[in-house]
Amino acid sequence: ARPRVGYFYSGKKTSQAISDNIAQMVVKDFQSIPVVVEESMTVYDAICHMFLEDVGSLFVVDKQSLLSGVLSRKDFLRTSIGNQDLNKMPVHMIMTRMPNITYCMKEDTLIEVANKLMSRQIDSLPVVKERKDGLEVVGRITKTNITRAFLSLADDHDL
Amino acid sequence: ARPRVGYFYSGKKTSQAISDNIAQMVVKDFQSIPVVVEESMTVYDAICHMFLEDVGSLFVVDKQSLLSGVLSRKDFLRTSIGNQDLNKMPVHMIMTRMPNITYCMKEDTLIEVANKLMSRQIDSLPVVKERKDGLEVVGRITKTNITRAFLSLADDHDL
Repeated sequence: ARPRVGYFYSGKKTSQAISDNIAQMVVKDFQSIPVVVEESMTVYDAICHMFLEDVGSLFVVDKQSLLSGVLSRKDFLRTSIGNQDLNKMPVHMIMTRMPNITYCMKEDTLIEVANKLMSRQIDSLPVVKERKDGLEVVGRITKTNITRAFLSLADDHDL
Repeated sequence: ARPRVGYFYSGKKTSQAISDNIAQMVVKDFQSIPVVVEESMTVYDAICHMFLEDVGSLFVVDKQSLLSGVLSRKDFLRTSIGNQDLNKMPVHMIMTRMPNITYCMKEDTLIEVANKLMSRQIDSLPVVKERKDGLEVVGRITKTNITRAFLSLADDHDL
């Protein structure tokens, strides 16, 4: 086929363009930087880390820097109202661990990610890269990123 | 003008329809049921209530059932790692209170709401109705609702 070169006025800026937009939105264009902690960090220190970084979830990595767990504000809140010493408990005792972690890849569409967030009732997913011995954490995608994508659809079309 | 009756094939299902859709999405079509507590409830009981109802925010009302505060998981987590007795502290001591509460009305567009959620860096807003003595809470809108709206745009267009 002959390559299309130069500019063509398609006359459909506010139309077909939007549905193309949604289907073409992929994780790597909307993801945030992941915040990662080690399995041995105490729950107390991890909560402080979460506040300092101002995020709603932390990802836990093992000694090979591979994904081993996920921690949410909800996990921390549940633990903190129990009668336990948060300074003595390592995060690996309370984290959600593999194979129960829902994750995505940077080429996945936001539609796929949004479906996972809704069906699993979670707020964020780690974005990972497959390595032969496990998963490397390369990003974080949350309902905040989806909200930003929703707004970008409106911005693109001057609503 | 003659009324349009019957069905017309517009031929622009996947096109103009989407940008119309985004601008026409309003709070009342996507909002969730609000979960409300009284100012005198203890922080401990409110956290339990939040888990039972499985929500990320609670709205606080005064004796006239008018909005007086908002509580997030982050507020609770901050309080629970302090050295305080959660069973003795009422929620009105830690809540965000008027006039610092960001809220919306049921006729507002999701674009307006999404902009407020992003600019204030919060996860949810109370949907309110104005009464002469204050604000009545009639709904709750969150980044989860925005994510659902995002997906509905994709569903409508078979992406």
